[in-house]
Amino acid sequence: MAAASKSLSFLKPLFVSLARPSSSSSSSLALSRARTIAIPNPLFSANSRSLSSVAFAQSTTENGGGGGGSRAIAPPQTPVVEELQRIDVNPPKGTRDFPPEEMRLRNWLFQNFREVSRLFGFEEVDFPVLESEALYIRKAGEEIREQLYCFEDRGNRRVALRPELTPSLARLVLQKGKSLSLPVKWYAVGQCWRYERMTRGRRREHYQWNMDIIGVPEVTAEAELISSIVTFFKRIGITASDVGFKVSSRKLLQEVLSHYSIHEDLFAKVCIIIDKIGKLPLDDIKKELKAVGVSTEAVEQILQVLSIKSLTTLEEIIGGAGEAIAELKQLFSLAEKFGYSEWVQFDASVVRGLAYYTGVVFEGFDRQGKLRAICGGGRYDQLLSTFGGDDVPACGFGFGDAVIVELLKDKGLLPELNLEVKNIVCALDPNLQGAAATVATILRDKGQSVDLVLENKPLKWVFKRAARINAERLILVGSSEWQRGTVGVKILATGEQNEIKLDELE
Amino acid sequence: MAAASKSLSFLKPLFVSLARPSSSSSSSLALSRARTIAIPNPLFSANSRSLSSVAFAQSTTENGGGGGGSRAIAPPQTPVVEELQRIDVNPPKGTRDFPPEEMRLRNWLFQNFREVSRLFGFEEVDFPVLESEALYIRKAGEEIREQLYCFEDRGNRRVALRPELTPSLARLVLQKGKSLSLPVKWYAVGQCWRYERMTRGRRREHYQWNMDIIGVPEVTAEAELISSIVTFFKRIGITASDVGFKVSSRKLLQEVLSHYSIHEDLFAKVCIIIDKIGKLPLDDIKKELKAVGVSTEAVEQILQVLSIKSLTTLEEIIGGAGEAIAELKQLFSLAEKFGYSEWVQFDASVVRGLAYYTGVVFEGFDRQGKLRAICGGGRYDQLLSTFGGDDVPACGFGFGDAVIVELLKDKGLLPELNLEVKNIVCALDPNLQGAAATVATILRDKGQSVDLVLENKPLKWVFKRAARINAERLILVGSSEWQRGTVGVKILATGEQNEIKLDELE
Repeated sequence: MAAASKSLSFLKPLFVSLARPSSSSSSSLALSRARTIAIPNPLFSANSRSLSSVAFAQSTTENGGGGGGSRAIAPPQTPVVEELQRIDVNPPKGTRDFPPEEMRLRNWLFQNFREVSRLFGFEEVDFPVLESEALYIRKAGEEIREQLYCFEDRGNRRVALRPELTPSLARLVLQKGKSLSLPVKWYAVGQCWRYERMTRGRRREHYQWNMDIIGVPEVTAEAELISSIVTFFKRIGITASDVGFKVSSRKLLQEVLSHYSIHEDLFAKVCIIIDKIGKLPLDDIKKELKAVGVSTEAVEQILQVLSIKSLTTLEEIIGGAGEAIAELKQLFSLAEKFGYSEWVQFDASVVRGLAYYTGVVFEGFDRQGKLRAICGGGRYDQLLSTFGGDDVPACGFGFGDAVIVELLKDKGLLPELNLEVKNIVCALDPNLQGAAATVATILRDKGQSVDLVLENKPLKWVFKRAARINAERLILVGSSEWQRGTVGVKILATGEQNEIKLDELE
Repeated sequence: MAAASKSLSFLKPLFVSLARPSSSSSSSLALSRARTIAIPNPLFSANSRSLSSVAFAQSTTENGGGGGGSRAIAPPQTPVVEELQRIDVNPPKGTRDFPPEEMRLRNWLFQNFREVSRLFGFEEVDFPVLESEALYIRKAGEEIREQLYCFEDRGNRRVALRPELTPSLARLVLQKGKSLSLPVKWYAVGQCWRYERMTRGRRREHYQWNMDIIGVPEVTAEAELISSIVTFFKRIGITASDVGFKVSSRKLLQEVLSHYSIHEDLFAKVCIIIDKIGKLPLDDIKKELKAVGVSTEAVEQILQVLSIKSLTTLEEIIGGAGEAIAELKQLFSLAEKFGYSEWVQFDASVVRGLAYYTGVVFEGFDRQGKLRAICGGGRYDQLLSTFGGDDVPACGFGFGDAVIVELLKDKGLLPELNLEVKNIVCALDPNLQGAAATVATILRDKGQSVDLVLENKPLKWVFKRAARINAERLILVGSSEWQRGTVGVKILATGEQNEIKLDELE
């Protein structure tokens, strides 16, 4: 049934060097073909091709390849697999295909990311999905670092599939140096990778929307970022009763550590440990804190401070003069002015799991408490110096494409997104395939989408396809109409049918 | 200058357990901050932050990492780099960052890809950038195969960064099996990777636009695909005098090989060798052909056939009865009906460098002959069986993002794409930062883009920024206006300035 039959038995004697006049003149080029396309009534040529008996292994065995313990970069010339009979039709473990229906959802989500970023005057950027491993080497024991998808390329460079976008952004900011006009307001939507054991149903890749503001020390920047996420939520139908933001500042913790004369080098490590509260038993947390050198007394104080859910209480306990309290107060005041007060709440337990945050941190959470954090961000004023540059005040957030979709599903808010092609154009006779192409071109030149039926198909099939693609109009190219310079146009919703002149086709 | 001063010397005594009444009431939350924001006239608070002295190594030394010959997947916990002082600010060799100006160009290009695909009724899909290596293992010695960016993941799976999109598409078609309604018309825009020596200024990644039609054996499918590329060229200002398509069919070659009883297993290999004509000396080509078992006589015949640039001549030489000639004649006839005759020409030398093509092949080229192929595609009716499925007729093309941009540059056709943010909103007094946030929110809720000035800046600075972002309006939030419930709105093109009520702001 495939077009390119493997037996070329129908071949006429080759290389008759004499010029043989071809039987048909050059004006009848079309359809002088070996295959039968005969029957004029399209209803009879039902050639319903389908993928029959696609049978294979969704086998769990690994693709043999270069063998378990061999070097990663094997010379590809080696004929590694002799039998190619059964490939795994699934994408690699932990990754996704995006068939049309999934792609429509992804595009819808990304369009909302982009539209919100545009409303806030941010410019889009992107970076390579493959980066130098050095960009992610931090000494704080982050989860993200432990799950780095790293390898060595053929030039013996240590590289990694990016686990997040912020380090690349910082690298680009450094690269651009003085040519950048501050503040920089950038956003990106990119795929990130983390190699983790697939125990919790988490995937190894996800897309992340990032917005970052570089060059603004004031907490107005954080307030602006949260405003953009709130705007996003509202656009997709999520309300303040579905979602909230927990907001705190790492400076609170810094003040505690400083009080106990704990060296500031420990700061990032302590934050990473504290971020595990709720995921690990409290005793383990305490043990880990003590292991890095935090005294028992300091541990208790840290845990006490972290349990505070009210800025007023916090102020009563630690006094109102610290930078953390002042900034948080300003942030909550701005939240009111931006109009999202009801979305935000102070919660000292939020520290976020990345080493580089230095000030305000926040995370979006579902109020039913069923899902992981929806998004998170904060201030990272010292990231650039860890890369060897001068520090510039900076803050940003990451918003993944996974948890939000789960939330939308739970709330029944997933949009119905269908393929919509305005016209389906069909030749009623194989000889009119070219005419149908002309009609399709006319419509496309006018900006209309056209599904051109490329084969001789029965009308029944065409109507079925028209329904599947949600076509508004069926345009039939018939022999006698074509001779009159017209086509049949059927409005599919009403059944109304008209004969329309080609040059009047809109 | 960084916001988070490392010395926390200004800290007031911590943990005064008694509740201390804060000096300011809760209504004056804003701006009770340690940092000075004093001077009321914004012209004087010129706090022009910039990235000073970003000095580092764009060093050529590799990031040390796990050492040259070690296993690719080193435990990431190992503290690999002790001194993180100087990172390379460039993206990994052969890859690109997309700062805003580059991203605007990429988005413009991709939007054109997507718009054309939509006009043709195609649905967007995507696949993982990381695939099983097995998907790309073919035995024909393709360049693409030799440049596979492959490695072993932590689970000892052989994986590869995809060098092209078609194998993933075929995998997904197999996976979906009977649930797909044929014909499938899919497009994708995705990043592809190839590890090559960086000698020819070629990059290691590029984005590729693919359109594929699965389930149509007729050459109408190829004609439709070329039509879509022509539509794309026209949209971006490229004409038939800039660019053409060379079209041929691998079936011609197949017929020659069959005539000489050359085993069909050799077909793909012969095609790959022939694709190197023009890149390697002809003697090397001949040697390679003989090395895989093609007789001297057959080699000469092949080269003779390949030199033909006219379908009529070809027909005179090999006769008109073969499938190849019939299909090519129909394709050229359809090209006329689609309206792109002047773009296409027969050229038997085109075979394309991928193993899986079986029928019509085509490539887009610049008529000045300065650039590599702009795009290429063809029919691949037997790819699915190499993956263990039943064959389904299929064809498609790949269109990269690199050569087209070079061509547009050469022709002076690169669009001028500027950042355009409609409004810039600025508080004239630090105390009005919240009011400015309110104004920004009102405008954004109405769908207008707003760059909100997040710091106290002199007006001179604000005007400069307004010019940089091509703002139409500057909205000034001043104290007395705010008390009257109004803002100052300045149309930047004309200098016209009005005081407008908040609820009349459009």
